[in-house]
Amino acid sequence: MSVSYKYQTLPIEKVFRDPVHNYIHIDHQVILDLINSKEVQRLRRIKQLGTSSFTFHGAEHSRFSHSLGVYEITRRICNIFQQNYSIEKIGEDGWDDSQRLIALCAALLHDVGHGPYSHTFEHIFHTDHEEITVAIITSPETEVYQILNRVEAGFPEKVASIITKTYPNPQVVQMISSQIDADRMDYLLRDAYFTGTKYGTFDLTRILRVIRPYKNGIAFAMNGMHAVEDYIVSRYQMYVQVYFHPSSRGMEVVLEHLLNRAHDLFPKEAPMFQSNAQLLVPFFKENFSLNDYLRLDDGVLNTAFNLWTELNDSILSDLANRFLNRKPLKSCRFEPGTQGQLIDTMKQIVEKAGFNPEYYTALNSSYDLPYDFYQPKLEKHRTQIELQQNDGTLVELSQISHLVAALAGQEQGDHRFYFPKEMIDPRLQNDSDLFGETYRLFASHIYNGALI
Amino acid sequence: MSVSYKYQTLPIEKVFRDPVHNYIHIDHQVILDLINSKEVQRLRRIKQLGTSSFTFHGAEHSRFSHSLGVYEITRRICNIFQQNYSIEKIGEDGWDDSQRLIALCAALLHDVGHGPYSHTFEHIFHTDHEEITVAIITSPETEVYQILNRVEAGFPEKVASIITKTYPNPQVVQMISSQIDADRMDYLLRDAYFTGTKYGTFDLTRILRVIRPYKNGIAFAMNGMHAVEDYIVSRYQMYVQVYFHPSSRGMEVVLEHLLNRAHDLFPKEAPMFQSNAQLLVPFFKENFSLNDYLRLDDGVLNTAFNLWTELNDSILSDLANRFLNRKPLKSCRFEPGTQGQLIDTMKQIVEKAGFNPEYYTALNSSYDLPYDFYQPKLEKHRTQIELQQNDGTLVELSQISHLVAALAGQEQGDHRFYFPKEMIDPRLQNDSDLFGETYRLFASHIYNGALI
Amino acid sequence: MSVSYKYQTLPIEKVFRDPVHNYIHIDHQVILDLINSKEVQRLRRIKQLGTSSFTFHGAEHSRFSHSLGVYEITRRICNIFQQNYSIEKIGEDGWDDSQRLIALCAALLHDVGHGPYSHTFEHIFHTDHEEITVAIITSPETEVYQILNRVEAGFPEKVASIITKTYPNPQVVQMISSQIDADRMDYLLRDAYFTGTKYGTFDLTRILRVIRPYKNGIAFAMNGMHAVEDYIVSRYQMYVQVYFHPSSRGMEVVLEHLLNRAHDLFPKEAPMFQSNAQLLVPFFKENFSLNDYLRLDDGVLNTAFNLWTELNDSILSDLANRFLNRKPLKSCRFEPGTQGQLIDTMKQIVEKAGFNPEYYTALNSSYDLPYDFYQPKLEKHRTQIELQQNDGTLVELSQISHLVAALAGQEQGDHRFYFPKEMIDPRLQNDSDLFGETYRLFASHIYNGALI
Amino acid sequence: MSVSYKYQTLPIEKVFRDPVHNYIHIDHQVILDLINSKEVQRLRRIKQLGTSSFTFHGAEHSRFSHSLGVYEITRRICNIFQQNYSIEKIGEDGWDDSQRLIALCAALLHDVGHGPYSHTFEHIFHTDHEEITVAIITSPETEVYQILNRVEAGFPEKVASIITKTYPNPQVVQMISSQIDADRMDYLLRDAYFTGTKYGTFDLTRILRVIRPYKNGIAFAMNGMHAVEDYIVSRYQMYVQVYFHPSSRGMEVVLEHLLNRAHDLFPKEAPMFQSNAQLLVPFFKENFSLNDYLRLDDGVLNTAFNLWTELNDSILSDLANRFLNRKPLKSCRFEPGTQGQLIDTMKQIVEKAGFNPEYYTALNSSYDLPYDFYQPKLEKHRTQIELQQNDGTLVELSQISHLVAALAGQEQGDHRFYFPKEMIDPRLQNDSDLFGETYRLFASHIYNGALI
Repeated sequence: MSVSYKYQTLPIEKVFRDPVHNYIHIDHQVILDLINSKEVQRLRRIKQLGTSSFTFHGAEHSRFSHSLGVYEITRRICNIFQQNYSIEKIGEDGWDDSQRLIALCAALLHDVGHGPYSHTFEHIFHTDHEEITVAIITSPETEVYQILNRVEAGFPEKVASIITKTYPNPQVVQMISSQIDADRMDYLLRDAYFTGTKYGTFDLTRILRVIRPYKNGIAFAMNGMHAVEDYIVSRYQMYVQVYFHPSSRGMEVVLEHLLNRAHDLFPKEAPMFQSNAQLLVPFFKENFSLNDYLRLDDGVLNTAFNLWTELNDSILSDLANRFLNRKPLKSCRFEPGTQGQLIDTMKQIVEKAGFNPEYYTALNSSYDLPYDFYQPKLEKHRTQIELQQNDGTLVELSQISHLVAALAGQEQGDHRFYFPKEMIDPRLQNDSDLFGETYRLFASHIYNGALI
Repeated sequence: MSVSYKYQTLPIEKVFRDPVHNYIHIDHQVILDLINSKEVQRLRRIKQLGTSSFTFHGAEHSRFSHSLGVYEITRRICNIFQQNYSIEKIGEDGWDDSQRLIALCAALLHDVGHGPYSHTFEHIFHTDHEEITVAIITSPETEVYQILNRVEAGFPEKVASIITKTYPNPQVVQMISSQIDADRMDYLLRDAYFTGTKYGTFDLTRILRVIRPYKNGIAFAMNGMHAVEDYIVSRYQMYVQVYFHPSSRGMEVVLEHLLNRAHDLFPKEAPMFQSNAQLLVPFFKENFSLNDYLRLDDGVLNTAFNLWTELNDSILSDLANRFLNRKPLKSCRFEPGTQGQLIDTMKQIVEKAGFNPEYYTALNSSYDLPYDFYQPKLEKHRTQIELQQNDGTLVELSQISHLVAALAGQEQGDHRFYFPKEMIDPRLQNDSDLFGETYRLFASHIYNGALI
Repeated sequence: MSVSYKYQTLPIEKVFRDPVHNYIHIDHQVILDLINSKEVQRLRRIKQLGTSSFTFHGAEHSRFSHSLGVYEITRRICNIFQQNYSIEKIGEDGWDDSQRLIALCAALLHDVGHGPYSHTFEHIFHTDHEEITVAIITSPETEVYQILNRVEAGFPEKVASIITKTYPNPQVVQMISSQIDADRMDYLLRDAYFTGTKYGTFDLTRILRVIRPYKNGIAFAMNGMHAVEDYIVSRYQMYVQVYFHPSSRGMEVVLEHLLNRAHDLFPKEAPMFQSNAQLLVPFFKENFSLNDYLRLDDGVLNTAFNLWTELNDSILSDLANRFLNRKPLKSCRFEPGTQGQLIDTMKQIVEKAGFNPEYYTALNSSYDLPYDFYQPKLEKHRTQIELQQNDGTLVELSQISHLVAALAGQEQGDHRFYFPKEMIDPRLQNDSDLFGETYRLFASHIYNGALI
Repeated sequence: MSVSYKYQTLPIEKVFRDPVHNYIHIDHQVILDLINSKEVQRLRRIKQLGTSSFTFHGAEHSRFSHSLGVYEITRRICNIFQQNYSIEKIGEDGWDDSQRLIALCAALLHDVGHGPYSHTFEHIFHTDHEEITVAIITSPETEVYQILNRVEAGFPEKVASIITKTYPNPQVVQMISSQIDADRMDYLLRDAYFTGTKYGTFDLTRILRVIRPYKNGIAFAMNGMHAVEDYIVSRYQMYVQVYFHPSSRGMEVVLEHLLNRAHDLFPKEAPMFQSNAQLLVPFFKENFSLNDYLRLDDGVLNTAFNLWTELNDSILSDLANRFLNRKPLKSCRFEPGTQGQLIDTMKQIVEKAGFNPEYYTALNSSYDLPYDFYQPKLEKHRTQIELQQNDGTLVELSQISHLVAALAGQEQGDHRFYFPKEMIDPRLQNDSDLFGETYRLFASHIYNGALI
């Protein structure tokens, strides 16, 4: 007599050593099989932070390790919910543990659609990692689908509906995606650990002590207010200090221009790309299958760039070299709206110094909203964070935290104008008189790190 | 008036955030230029631990971050030597700080010749990362050489002589390479940090307090004996618990067989490899230039494997899939010498189950000597660790440490027989009766994890 | 020929293992002698956090370890100032290293006047730890004075003037006492470490990288803004989560009432106290010498309480028992100003239940200003935190940090009404009907943790 | 209807923040009541490491925090045993969870009989902390007894039988007391944390993954061998580097001589001690009650010493000053057995320099056996550590670990001769010619830190 696949547990709990959570614990055969699927294993070959590892050299961790981490936090939340707040115990505000497996699957798979250097890649090739996540989960040819479908018919679609936030149980949806969810909690801790910065370190154990389910989602005990506050501040700090770092964006700009150059060249140079970037061709053609997408990883792109360094197009090979050998564009702050003309001037100076401004300058704005309350009118409104009083009533976080109120609804970030390092580094400059003049003119427009 | 390149320091000290050492500090223009060279940047694309990251998913750090770490420890040792034990202060046993720059360069570059999955790659393609390190340092076409040669004529060769241990100053040589050197100290701490294990954590600050130069090399104050002892034990623990992990070796075996299969096929399938592994062809031909070597990285190999999954050779494509999707061979211990016949039997059973034993079984022995005293008769004799008494006399470590004496001269490790997981996992087995018999027979020869 | 005492350095640098800073480094004979003085050694017997260790059982560290920590941070600041910003190098904004010894002495001694449970003790016996610090430094009978006076005549008075902020060099004064000084930086890190909370953990290494002297004090490089911001938020979190913890204050209230009771009883019970609290008698008499004060420590008070548990006065012995055996008063929040009458009612109920409200109830308000800008009109105005731009101009912190602006000038804390646990814990209640009514009435005035 | 006291759980789990284990979790009312008992609270006033905090200033933690830690580790072991190895699941080798409460009580109370500076105090006053632990648990006048007795009649005696190792369930006994028990595991981690050394840090989480019950006690899975090995080495390192530190022993010697002096003086000076050490008098008389013992703590002893500094006996007051102000005796190694005559000579020199050798010199040997296998012939034989193979058979640890074999049955430590610092520190020496000769003679007998 055999237990149905859905309920199969491992004879002995399996663990993976994890530097952030100490151990990742696996009890379900389904989860172990998903981890071993080729779509999930592929995430080992995609860095979590893309170009940030050029600035923080420790941050070479993959989306695979993050996916395990999100799974583990979700598992711990389920344990706490089941132990203290099961629906049998506290009624309609409680947690229904039959939701556990689907929550764990969604947690593990929430990023399975990410590709190499997602942010930039999506921008140029018009892919969407969330749509692809859904496609991987619901397409019969994937291993992930086959595993989920063995659980029960329709299970893949249910898992996908958590990703798209249409799943009926709001507790499960918010566990995976809200302003304080397993995804964000893992990446803040993980990125802090691997970058070696301390800013992302909030008190996960404390958060897990105060998290609780209620009918419409997830809330936090009132006496955990300061722990939640601390998490919001950590998130803010990681954004301004790590994710928006000017050098990482300087590499992102190089990458974007490099892919753009290839894209622009492709129509007339298709055979060249066929033999030097075989796996990218479907994307240049803007006609790719799910399987084409699943063959991509960081190494595939880097290998293409490696081959491109020897091609004839001087912009393509130069940008490929700059990317592989970490030569970021440099930058200064600018004021959007009012400095358009000045930026045009700067681009002309760059051109005069011998660089095509289309491929060697850029405007880059990095902005984020560390916290927002619920604004139903906004297209991308957010689920606000609720604190629960002794008597069960809920209060929105920024109502009682000065700190969070200071950050709520306020975007944080900056606008930067990017240009070649040659413009400001005498060691790299051509030393004819004429050029000296050009460089001096360029420098005269930058003061205290900003365009003037 | 300008300072010669050799003595140029940065206007403001530059730092890199490092999770292990907190900050890596750069003062010399030469060092910054070396870090920015393309040969060093390439190390970002080569994992420090190769297949170990398949077992310890956090251990995705690169040889680049390790190289910075070795540099940083060397820098700290130089600082301590200069502050407390300069040759001006303590005479012939002291440290001559004019050796600093060369020591730092050697530290940073000591692994620059590593390629992707070095251990396996070297075995199959007969490359040698140490020889290539020397070649990179001393070949006029590399950026590394050009930077070093600007310091002064002959400088590249001097740096290389530290790698080959022929440099006349034994203090500098031992800093970079001895039984307790900057290289080992960094990798133990770093690998412990990224794997998330604790075993490699010894007390670096304490070691740096007791390290001291003497005429013939480097010694440790007697009162630091236990800190050195602790380092030796940490090293032992990392070997037996991390570096020799059976699953990582199970992936290494897959990799080795995969590359062997390609190598075996190449003579008759050259064009196929030309278009599916362009950058590897010089190695299949066993005729490669330094530049060919420098174009390799983990991504280049993985991309080749990616393409090979779709080729016609079923062994090649199957092994490529196993490697990319992490399907290690499984293993059991065996006794070398006495079980040859039994191993032949096991191979025959594997063959009967449908696997070519040449590509699907392997013997793998991982052994290491955690510490050894000086044995001049040995070809690879080691520099023993010396403790210094108040009166300046030296005592060899194992003379006074029971713990180290227990490990000295004793190899630690094990011998394993590898085979496909299919042989022991019913979920993967072909369920015809005939095969059932085969599998049972196979299983009957393994007890308590060992061949019997 | 001998070096003058002022310049004597130790033959070998001496270190103390410190869990927060790893090592405390001592180079000067003067500093080592001060550490070994009996006035400084006495700080080993006084807990840093007083009654907080009743709530956070790990926080049993002493003022001695904090004093070493403040010294060590000051030493590191001096090192950085001397290395990068010496007055020889950068002119009038720079650091004059002849100020080092005096800064180190003041750092080490800044808390030497603290007594047992300072906050409460001072309140009742009208002592002032800052005045006593100055007295210890400048009174010829202390070992501290004798050591300092050997440095040079007038040196003790100079060190004292740093404590009183009248010393002419503002850099030295601000190092020891400002809104971001060595004192606060050490106690946040140290209290976080020993309580086991994470909130106090900010990035000291980063702060030390961006701190710099200028003519009128100490500033921080603009690119360190977020690190300073993080420190301010950590400080806020430690206040609201650790220092203001309601249970610790519940113990403080017990202590205050206990000492008050003894003080009240003393006039008629002098002989009893003479034999049961010999060392406290000068304080009951409000006529004590510096030497009397220096004989006090936590153990002296606890031993007195120990003896008092057996005395005849039932309030004194009960409160002594409550303090020694950790029975804090319980509390609820109240609104100051508007709830006076209700508080009177509550006190009457407490009295009805058999407790003298003078000794068994209390109002306790804990408030702090996490950051303030300079407000010259305030009696206790603060030195604001300044950020320095590339061109040397200064900007006040809250001008550019939203987070800090949200906290600036805003007091954080709460008001609590304290009462015996018996009022709300049925397990402790006398079960006659009459009392049941009393307890129910009491409970009816508390809702969601606040008086209503 | 009410649940019997034995089974009462708290409505909400209560936690204490702990820097070592993050949180201590309390579920049982019995445990919470025991923690709140005055006998357990008293442990807050007794330092865990006695005189070691004079060497490692961070190590000011109390026996209270250690007791909570031992409780918490025991709780975690019970959880694992119940989850994976309950007797229902695996039969006679399994864990019977009805043993949980008694195990937790014994864990929490195992050190409740410790007094101030136990080691020294017991030596002089012939007390025995283990006997007193049993007395506290089984004497009807203690709060601890009353709580335990409410659980059920005979329960106090059962708890006591775990302390005396006569309890019939060997699993419970070994959890609390064996070569790898909750007691040792907590103190190694805790002492490492608070001293700031790293040597005691082993991998508790890993140990807890491999620990398992069997019929005759507790064993460890074979694949956890290296984790256990690491624990043994950590234990060894903590002994040789922390617990046996020469300076701490130098303070212990001062303390021992100080108490001896008082003891010697008592017969003729009883009234003096009556008013200056009231709570110690029963011990001088060697006639004390359990209640007398329970009133002692570190502060009581220190307060007595404080008062003694002003008494007329110059040896008593000098030693009291040396203890309070941390003036340890200094030491050198000696060879026991062969250097008796030389030690006599050294004592004579010390006497010549004006110190009574009975009170100012000492021989002190600190030895420990880091691990031993079972030796039934020894009076204090030990329960050896067993590893369990897949098939359930057990193997003794040192049979398969070279490292442990090297330490097994070998005592580690040293023998030291202690003397006043004045003998070797010129700054403290009387500078008449005559004495100069004496000091030179003394110094001539010490070389490389040892007597010669």
